[in-house]
Amino acid sequence: MTSSPKDPRPKDLRGDPPLPAIPRDAKDDLGPQAVEARRKLWEQAAGGPAPHVFGAAVSYEAARGKIENFVGFAQVPLGIAGPMRVDTSLGVREVYVPMATTEGAMVASYSRGMRLLKSGGGVRARVLGEGLTQNPILVYADAERAARAAEIAARSFEDLRRIVGGTTRHGRLVALRPEVVGKRLVVSLVFTTGDALGINMAAAAAELCSKELADRTGAEKRYLHGQDVEKRANARGLAEGRGRRVVADATVPRDELVRGTRATPEDLVAIQRTYAVGFAGLGTQNWLVQAANGLAAVMIACGQDAAYVTESATGMLDFEVTPKGDLYASVHLPCLLVGTVGGGTGQGTAAECLKLLGCSGEGKANAFAEILAATVLAGDLSLMAAFAAHEFVASHEKLGRNRPTGKGA
Amino acid sequence: MTSSPKDPRPKDLRGDPPLPAIPRDAKDDLGPQAVEARRKLWEQAAGGPAPHVFGAAVSYEAARGKIENFVGFAQVPLGIAGPMRVDTSLGVREVYVPMATTEGAMVASYSRGMRLLKSGGGVRARVLGEGLTQNPILVYADAERAARAAEIAARSFEDLRRIVGGTTRHGRLVALRPEVVGKRLVVSLVFTTGDALGINMAAAAAELCSKELADRTGAEKRYLHGQDVEKRANARGLAEGRGRRVVADATVPRDELVRGTRATPEDLVAIQRTYAVGFAGLGTQNWLVQAANGLAAVMIACGQDAAYVTESATGMLDFEVTPKGDLYASVHLPCLLVGTVGGGTGQGTAAECLKLLGCSGEGKANAFAEILAATVLAGDLSLMAAFAAHEFVASHEKLGRNRPTGKGA
Amino acid sequence: MTSSPKDPRPKDLRGDPPLPAIPRDAKDDLGPQAVEARRKLWEQAAGGPAPHVFGAAVSYEAARGKIENFVGFAQVPLGIAGPMRVDTSLGVREVYVPMATTEGAMVASYSRGMRLLKSGGGVRARVLGEGLTQNPILVYADAERAARAAEIAARSFEDLRRIVGGTTRHGRLVALRPEVVGKRLVVSLVFTTGDALGINMAAAAAELCSKELADRTGAEKRYLHGQDVEKRANARGLAEGRGRRVVADATVPRDELVRGTRATPEDLVAIQRTYAVGFAGLGTQNWLVQAANGLAAVMIACGQDAAYVTESATGMLDFEVTPKGDLYASVHLPCLLVGTVGGGTGQGTAAECLKLLGCSGEGKANAFAEILAATVLAGDLSLMAAFAAHEFVASHEKLGRNRPTGKGA
Amino acid sequence: MTSSPKDPRPKDLRGDPPLPAIPRDAKDDLGPQAVEARRKLWEQAAGGPAPHVFGAAVSYEAARGKIENFVGFAQVPLGIAGPMRVDTSLGVREVYVPMATTEGAMVASYSRGMRLLKSGGGVRARVLGEGLTQNPILVYADAERAARAAEIAARSFEDLRRIVGGTTRHGRLVALRPEVVGKRLVVSLVFTTGDALGINMAAAAAELCSKELADRTGAEKRYLHGQDVEKRANARGLAEGRGRRVVADATVPRDELVRGTRATPEDLVAIQRTYAVGFAGLGTQNWLVQAANGLAAVMIACGQDAAYVTESATGMLDFEVTPKGDLYASVHLPCLLVGTVGGGTGQGTAAECLKLLGCSGEGKANAFAEILAATVLAGDLSLMAAFAAHEFVASHEKLGRNRPTGKGA
Repeated sequence: MTSSPKDPRPKDLRGDPPLPAIPRDAKDDLGPQAVEARRKLWEQAAGGPAPHVFGAAVSYEAARGKIENFVGFAQVPLGIAGPMRVDTSLGVREVYVPMATTEGAMVASYSRGMRLLKSGGGVRARVLGEGLTQNPILVYADAERAARAAEIAARSFEDLRRIVGGTTRHGRLVALRPEVVGKRLVVSLVFTTGDALGINMAAAAAELCSKELADRTGAEKRYLHGQDVEKRANARGLAEGRGRRVVADATVPRDELVRGTRATPEDLVAIQRTYAVGFAGLGTQNWLVQAANGLAAVMIACGQDAAYVTESATGMLDFEVTPKGDLYASVHLPCLLVGTVGGGTGQGTAAECLKLLGCSGEGKANAFAEILAATVLAGDLSLMAAFAAHEFVASHEKLGRNRPTGKGA
Repeated sequence: MTSSPKDPRPKDLRGDPPLPAIPRDAKDDLGPQAVEARRKLWEQAAGGPAPHVFGAAVSYEAARGKIENFVGFAQVPLGIAGPMRVDTSLGVREVYVPMATTEGAMVASYSRGMRLLKSGGGVRARVLGEGLTQNPILVYADAERAARAAEIAARSFEDLRRIVGGTTRHGRLVALRPEVVGKRLVVSLVFTTGDALGINMAAAAAELCSKELADRTGAEKRYLHGQDVEKRANARGLAEGRGRRVVADATVPRDELVRGTRATPEDLVAIQRTYAVGFAGLGTQNWLVQAANGLAAVMIACGQDAAYVTESATGMLDFEVTPKGDLYASVHLPCLLVGTVGGGTGQGTAAECLKLLGCSGEGKANAFAEILAATVLAGDLSLMAAFAAHEFVASHEKLGRNRPTGKGA
Repeated sequence: MTSSPKDPRPKDLRGDPPLPAIPRDAKDDLGPQAVEARRKLWEQAAGGPAPHVFGAAVSYEAARGKIENFVGFAQVPLGIAGPMRVDTSLGVREVYVPMATTEGAMVASYSRGMRLLKSGGGVRARVLGEGLTQNPILVYADAERAARAAEIAARSFEDLRRIVGGTTRHGRLVALRPEVVGKRLVVSLVFTTGDALGINMAAAAAELCSKELADRTGAEKRYLHGQDVEKRANARGLAEGRGRRVVADATVPRDELVRGTRATPEDLVAIQRTYAVGFAGLGTQNWLVQAANGLAAVMIACGQDAAYVTESATGMLDFEVTPKGDLYASVHLPCLLVGTVGGGTGQGTAAECLKLLGCSGEGKANAFAEILAATVLAGDLSLMAAFAAHEFVASHEKLGRNRPTGKGA
Repeated sequence: MTSSPKDPRPKDLRGDPPLPAIPRDAKDDLGPQAVEARRKLWEQAAGGPAPHVFGAAVSYEAARGKIENFVGFAQVPLGIAGPMRVDTSLGVREVYVPMATTEGAMVASYSRGMRLLKSGGGVRARVLGEGLTQNPILVYADAERAARAAEIAARSFEDLRRIVGGTTRHGRLVALRPEVVGKRLVVSLVFTTGDALGINMAAAAAELCSKELADRTGAEKRYLHGQDVEKRANARGLAEGRGRRVVADATVPRDELVRGTRATPEDLVAIQRTYAVGFAGLGTQNWLVQAANGLAAVMIACGQDAAYVTESATGMLDFEVTPKGDLYASVHLPCLLVGTVGGGTGQGTAAECLKLLGCSGEGKANAFAEILAATVLAGDLSLMAAFAAHEFVASHEKLGRNRPTGKGA
């Protein structure tokens, strides 16, 4: 099998065999049979059971190091979306995506988006870069001393790199940028952290680096987290990125789009333009549509730190009509903060969900980030199409039964 | 009982009796005895057991209307922080705050903050306003028609109010602001939604209103979610608020602060100033410190939609040294998007957690928002004090055992 | 004369008679003859001479109250763009727009845009709203007192309105919005100021209002300019507006656009989409293209405070292809801070330039703002068309002779 | 003469001799004698007359290459502030700063600030970095091709550097950063431009570079100014800088501050904290106070492009109380876009004003930027002190006689 020079996409679409559609029971989708059918599907796709997802209590031990004053477990409803076909850096895969949420209609929306994307051959997603920023601030008597310290800091990069390298196997200092702001010196340190999200690793390394720089430069004060970018949406994130910078794109055939959503590619381009007017008026860094939904749902399912949804939901959505009249769609997610080792990933339902995605453990963080980006694309495509077709309120009325009771609502 | 004119704080500090400290076992805090002791405490505080938090599987039925393609439940470690003493709009309360997370050291950090706040008599928190915005966009042939439509929209407020009032018991249209942007008309509609977060209610009402306005004004196109503020951090949120606008403040006695954290009030003011320099350089709407942590953890525990952490983590933290030398601390949270009815609140572990807080069901959304704001204040106070005392890395090293294994890390 | 119900545009296109094209001398456009020909044109259009623009020294007296340590006058090259046909709130007008700049190619760019706009019947521009915000901050002992003060402030609106009304003939307090931020109360006061920009008037009124409120509420501290929006670009400006909120739009026939610029309507829509991607990545409130150029040039010519360009260059540009294939273009300028009385408007070259526009003195501020908005639209249209046709560098090379000398540049 | 190792400040305070105070005539400051006295001072300081500032018409020829459709000159009132003592990269200088404005009280405010700064030994200002960004966007068929192009772009840096070096004597390509956003590639190119602002030079070089990259990578479309940062305030500017990045700082003795302004260092720190709360709520990149005033006034006087005030007024102001109780003050101005050759700098009043500053021509752009930063510091210090002392409205009432007439105002 050869790939034509005109088509740069990898042709290893053998990958996993196509996965079956997720069974649903129109009468009672929460009935034991329907649930059992989906659990079977999960077991086949994951190559084994997921006892904790299916109801077995997780052991206390699984919480070790993850929480204090432990009393038990919060149980969040978990569904699966898909199958989604995604070309990752580990090859083409078909996956069911586990999502934990209580927002009715959301998993269905993502699932529809995945079907649409699959109709055009699937999504392609790639991590383009990686770097976990830490920004200690050192303070000096005046701007002149801060400027001298900036020069020393710039010259100390290789030394700091060595120091960091000597204390952690997974973490690397990959960039250092000193910025003088009056008498303060903001030292932007960028680390790679392997397959862990790596914030503790990075913080420990930044502690070492900032201490060393403070000593070398005679800083009066040192603030380890001086420019604290952690878990907050911010304008620089969209430009500079943090964590993993991921892109995902796909082409959806015009016919499939219209058949599946009643919206045309032109409708989607038009609705996105109006959204752009709205977003500009808000002053936001999140030019995606429902990214926070999909990210929160997969992150809770997969043992990620859900507080990072704030930063991770930074990015852009793009729609275009191709010369052939199909829809080209992409998402740009420059701040995906996730990992497949460490944190909450190793035990209980999180480990089971990562396994379902084929993303457990070392060597899998990029693929996991890529699947997340593809998921975001699926959700945004589906929701924008629903908006375009004015279906939004209607679909929520039908599927969402979680409204306060009483007449009217 | 009288309250002195010098002290404006309500004197009903009888409220609940003081709650005991949370038992911990220094040797093995995940051992059955330690966990059991805390569960006893929970039962006493909540007035009954929490079987699902304590391990019993939640029934499928609890997921009805909340998810599609249901397969089971994600189980997220749950701990309790506190006790926290908080003066809410429903009176003074002492509560344990349930938090679901996998970030080691976090619950301990919040718990420490709550102890500090209690040492000064507790936090006072109040919802200052409420309103769930929806911003449909109507499009016209040109700016002149859009401007005319804006006038018609402004005059239609009472009519729309009546229309909305006729379709929902809990939702009210409370404000309408039309804004012409070229040939587009952004119609900002503000709703109150009772004790539900109320997004479906608001979206349904906005559908009605925008349709009515489109008819009255001859709009060429109508986008229900044209300026989509939903689940995205944005600059307007800090200024205009969305959901519940909450303030929480407290005074921490100097001695208690120094004893508990080794940081002085002056240290905290100094560190906050440096953070302000950092935040300004980021372009962020989140001038809090670890708000996203506490919000995500309580929201997951209490059946809230965690995707709203993006918007909810908007706000400001303020520290000042009082004339007596104590620390005055406040948080401003203008976008708390939470509810105590509807969504994921009514069943399973979420219902148990809301019950622990005394915030189940109708009439409790404001108190819940106030407890959340007080929790955010506790966490930010504790973390800033840790930063001030350079303890951050050390505490994570000690408590957080969730790092990837292997030498170094 | 009737206007068809299908066409909402005023039909009083009799207005001023069409103005002749601006004479240029291809050989030596700075030769005495070419300059004299344009000065003649100016005199005809303005109904009289402009001796100071034409070289006569302005008297010292003209600087009274406008500057300290006066030594003379800065002389900035002044050209005219146009003619521009603009439908203002004072009727349809044809005008030459005076622009003071040293950026070669800029006046030519605006002039070309005005020709293009005229080819479709001209621009329509309207002031949609007006309000000069001042935001004093009052500080209290704690959030509770700040919240009480907010209630008192809201109730004091009518009183403050009366107080302001008793001290100024032109200024009116039109809105008051108190916002509690921790223990601080931001009091947003909105004034109208007649035909003056009115900042001194508004500041004096805000001084009165904030002092009165501080007295009524027992504020501990009062900061007159606490939330200082003055002369700084900011995200709220795009949403809330300040000064005059103006819209301008026009339709440019497809043929004229292509003939005049070699760009099609589709090209302009495409280039704007790419710009939108770029602007989103910047975190800006200025979604216009060269607005700052035109605004600065006209403002310097017309005696405005050029420091307000920072705020005034807030807004949005929009292009669309009409159903007939023409170009629809609009600008949204919510923060135009200009006036036709007070400030630098009454004397010297500024008075002459305002007279050329027919915008001297009372009753003219809206029309002046509308002409400014139309000018911005002309410039953005022309520059985007140049970008679309990849002419930008070339035109600067040809017209701009102001580069540092030496081979290469 | 040695400089102590404890004191890093250059000891060449011999520099220019101290300049006399600017003469004012309390009775009639616009009378011929007062004006003449200041013109004498100007001649002494500049080493020669400034005929055009003093009233002689500038020749048409001076406008060549700077404007089209030339008709004459706008005359803007010009005053001088100072003397200001500033330690620049060209040594310590005392200067009078020419300011063109029509805002009464402003020059006096800057002048007062300069006196205050001088009382502590003067300001120190330094350019810390330089770079004029251009951000062409290249568009590809999909994200994969864009990502490949990014790699090629990164590898092409040296080639592009050579290409640019071969076409311009003053311009250098100093950095290149490719950023993939979906199927678009934003190519951030950073140039140094010598003593010219250099935008035409940079645009021409970016045209070359983007064309070369488009050829090498097979781009489908190329937008020279795709991410157009030019003349717009934006969040990245504060972080990344553009043009010249300048810092200025000074210490003002406590006694002098109190005597000169009635405000203490503690007052200034307190007022700045409240301003920070206000600025955070605005979403601004301009954390200075009246920077736009001083920048616009000096830029108009000195033949700069005033439209760049939008970007140049990006930055931060900082106040601190020193251990001795004095005031430490600094400004951070990362986007100063100015030049001393090219543009409007070479002729007429602009050339005379630059000469007054000792900043004409080659080798002077850094010193000019440093004087500008020192000027901004002077103005912000003075105005904040006025606000602190509640003098703002009063001083405007007294000096500003430019209000609309009529009773009340």
